[in-house]
Amino acid sequence: MNSEKRDHLFLDDLHVGQTFTSPSHRLDTEQIKRFAQEFDPQSFHLDENAAAQSLFAGLAASGWHTAALTMRLLVNGGAPIAGGIIGAAVEIAWPKPTRPGDELHVVSEVEEIIPSRSKPDRGIVVLRSETRNQRSEVVQVLTSKLVVPRRQSSGKK
Amino acid sequence: MNSEKRDHLFLDDLHVGQTFTSPSHRLDTEQIKRFAQEFDPQSFHLDENAAAQSLFAGLAASGWHTAALTMRLLVNGGAPIAGGIIGAAVEIAWPKPTRPGDELHVVSEVEEIIPSRSKPDRGIVVLRSETRNQRSEVVQVLTSKLVVPRRQSSGKK
Repeated sequence: MNSEKRDHLFLDDLHVGQTFTSPSHRLDTEQIKRFAQEFDPQSFHLDENAAAQSLFAGLAASGWHTAALTMRLLVNGGAPIAGGIIGAAVEIAWPKPTRPGDELHVVSEVEEIIPSRSKPDRGIVVLRSETRNQRSEVVQVLTSKLVVPRRQSSGKK
Repeated sequence: MNSEKRDHLFLDDLHVGQTFTSPSHRLDTEQIKRFAQEFDPQSFHLDENAAAQSLFAGLAASGWHTAALTMRLLVNGGAPIAGGIIGAAVEIAWPKPTRPGDELHVVSEVEEIIPSRSKPDRGIVVLRSETRNQRSEVVQVLTSKLVVPRRQSSGKK
């Protein structure tokens, strides 16, 4: 994965409708089972035969694995926010399963920018991030409320 | 962690206000850094000195780590749902950071039960899960829409 730093954006640099595209990550069976073993040990994430009989009709990654990988892709260029990606709250939907062999990337769009009234040095940005597979199917929709700093514009410089 | 199976509950067995308490899990610095390295490589999850200067004022676990651990605790007895814990959508808030040494457990409450109109064999359960530390402070609130099967009540038995 690409971890080079790009110019990071402050609240003042963002506008509604602005989009970002992350690098991509290929998921395989070993990664799916390893994550599930540690954090979501349910048979449809661990065993092909059990998964075939389940609601998923085949081995599927834990939704929390998809979420964690999405974060990795946002950190690695998918959301170049100054000060880092700090979520106060999120909503997630998983419209389709993530499967072994899926190559995921994340396309994000700034939906709302809300300067803080009480803390003039920051604001909240609502970012909608779609995690898409190699067929451009959306496997996860993440809507995040991120804490984003403003550029320092006080007298000292 | 406790992984023994308890009687698992179908949609028909659940009622609004029903609560469940998970086993607990102790988080340490090594686990926090290992998760962050793989999924959320930001300095406030990886480096004590950088974290001290950040919004978190000290090393903090990735919110996605808290979320993944919460899932583990739900699977390990914190939400004894028949057919497994299958989330269609969730909301998460992180009111306080999770720190090294925190001992987490999850207290869940059934908020709503919605039988499916189109699929009579299942329904949606809205479960609110608070992840609490050893001081009973809430570090995460997860509200999940879970797909839960009904008991088979057709003639065949």
